[in-house]
Amino acid sequence: MTISTGQQYALAIDLGGTKVEAALVDPTGAVYAPSRFRAATGPQKSSDELALAVDEVLALALAALPADAQLLGVGIGSAGPINEAEGKVSPLNLPVWREYPLRDQVVASVPDGTPVTLRMDGICITLAEHWVGAGKGYNNVMGMIVSTGIGGGLILGGVTVSGPTGNAGHIGHVEVAGMEDPCPCGGAGCVEAVASGPNTVRWAREHGFQGSTGEELGAAYRAGDPVAIAAVEHAGRAIGQVIASATSLVDLDIVAIGGGFSHVTPDLFDHMRAAVARRRNFSFVTKVKIVPTGLSSDGPLIGAAALIHRSAVVA
Amino acid sequence: MTISTGQQYALAIDLGGTKVEAALVDPTGAVYAPSRFRAATGPQKSSDELALAVDEVLALALAALPADAQLLGVGIGSAGPINEAEGKVSPLNLPVWREYPLRDQVVASVPDGTPVTLRMDGICITLAEHWVGAGKGYNNVMGMIVSTGIGGGLILGGVTVSGPTGNAGHIGHVEVAGMEDPCPCGGAGCVEAVASGPNTVRWAREHGFQGSTGEELGAAYRAGDPVAIAAVEHAGRAIGQVIASATSLVDLDIVAIGGGFSHVTPDLFDHMRAAVARRRNFSFVTKVKIVPTGLSSDGPLIGAAALIHRSAVVA
Repeated sequence: MTISTGQQYALAIDLGGTKVEAALVDPTGAVYAPSRFRAATGPQKSSDELALAVDEVLALALAALPADAQLLGVGIGSAGPINEAEGKVSPLNLPVWREYPLRDQVVASVPDGTPVTLRMDGICITLAEHWVGAGKGYNNVMGMIVSTGIGGGLILGGVTVSGPTGNAGHIGHVEVAGMEDPCPCGGAGCVEAVASGPNTVRWAREHGFQGSTGEELGAAYRAGDPVAIAAVEHAGRAIGQVIASATSLVDLDIVAIGGGFSHVTPDLFDHMRAAVARRRNFSFVTKVKIVPTGLSSDGPLIGAAALIHRSAVVA
Repeated sequence: MTISTGQQYALAIDLGGTKVEAALVDPTGAVYAPSRFRAATGPQKSSDELALAVDEVLALALAALPADAQLLGVGIGSAGPINEAEGKVSPLNLPVWREYPLRDQVVASVPDGTPVTLRMDGICITLAEHWVGAGKGYNNVMGMIVSTGIGGGLILGGVTVSGPTGNAGHIGHVEVAGMEDPCPCGGAGCVEAVASGPNTVRWAREHGFQGSTGEELGAAYRAGDPVAIAAVEHAGRAIGQVIASATSLVDLDIVAIGGGFSHVTPDLFDHMRAAVARRRNFSFVTKVKIVPTGLSSDGPLIGAAALIHRSAVVA
């Protein structure tokens, strides 16, 4: 005799600087399309408007739960920094939210007793790479996003590294030798300040490039523009250097990299690999694999859902 | 009725670039003084001579085991890199040993069935700080040695980070923004190449300092020599910068720092803290404590013994 209990879903929420998304995700890591909703966030919104955006996508996704299906829990991935112990978020690009009790808000909107787990978005991305992406089969993985900013997360020894405050994984604020670009964190020479999409465009413009977006930089690169070529090399080398530093510190197997600017040209990855290869006398550093993300644009939601479906690897 | 079983000891071995030491260590982390022996290593020794030095201190320490005492196991801390899975060592400063099967050698010299665990020395130091030193009571600790080189180890979430090859903890090869000093690993701007004792002396000499040792630099500092003062600031800032990078990546509670050059002046620590404080918009970075080691010169042996006595926190 078999009992059909229906599908078991995790409700995933991904909160970022420009949008919040929610969806139901099944135990294979597939997003249930009819349950996927998004709403705008952004620095111009009030705290109440942000809260409403979250409530809205959460309610819509929850309402899409099929009658015979079960809700296992809610996973929230948020732009950092966060305060994991208290379930609060302070996303750098949503300045009205500082120590905002996002987890409590979500708990209040779901059935009593539903588990709700909050982690930084970079950790969620890394969980997704490890579950269904390029990091599958590896125990020591860094997921990275190279986009407007540079972020990431770590899985070491097969489990996530969250840290005492929940902010482990800020690879964007690891420094690059030789660089001194001022960084919003207060430091200088952080790889985000050197090699994010906007900062690579800035560097190119300082060297004579006329465009103003990563897309234009990519087009110029493909057209053979020497400044665009130098800018991509500059960014790729910087990213490779922090991968070498991170591998020296935590001995990674593989780094999986996504985010808009990571697609500027596949050659970006060659420059990263060349920078790591310079550490020729440390085979444990040069052994690290650097690969493009294995995830679609569903990655952040899949990663948030992994907080529930893959709780055994979530520390 | 109580049964006296005598003391339970771990046999600790610490292999470094200039010496190898062995001793019995009790479950409180105290070295049993009559069992402590050392022999010289060094780049001028042959492989057989190195093996003999290890055998010698191991046999002497083992012979000091009291008749009613029990040997729980052997912990070996070795200069890196190592190959943890195969129990082999390739200490940078002992070039004749590359993938040398140190663990097998030790296994052959102790009673059958005795557990033997090998880890990088930086991980052992960190275990010692966490057990009986400055890291006691913290779950996210980096131990650091600032001496001829710069090394370290990590305890995250209460357990050691070893990595797939056993080489996690190489904080000395994390890069420093703004620096470009060539490093023996093949990279440039690694903190070891900037701020180790010898490299700080080198920097001072390049700026007019006449001495040639860390001790002389410390004396000049205390005498108010402006170049020595600038050299200490240069080194302290660089070390602080990699602590900021490491804390961004793995969200540390505390960093405990020992090693000969760390004692050059307590002001060295103030420069580290000032560098970390620059990251003013990331409270999870600026919260990291930076403190001098809580260990005596027994630290490396206590840490190697912790591989046995504290196996629950050894990943």
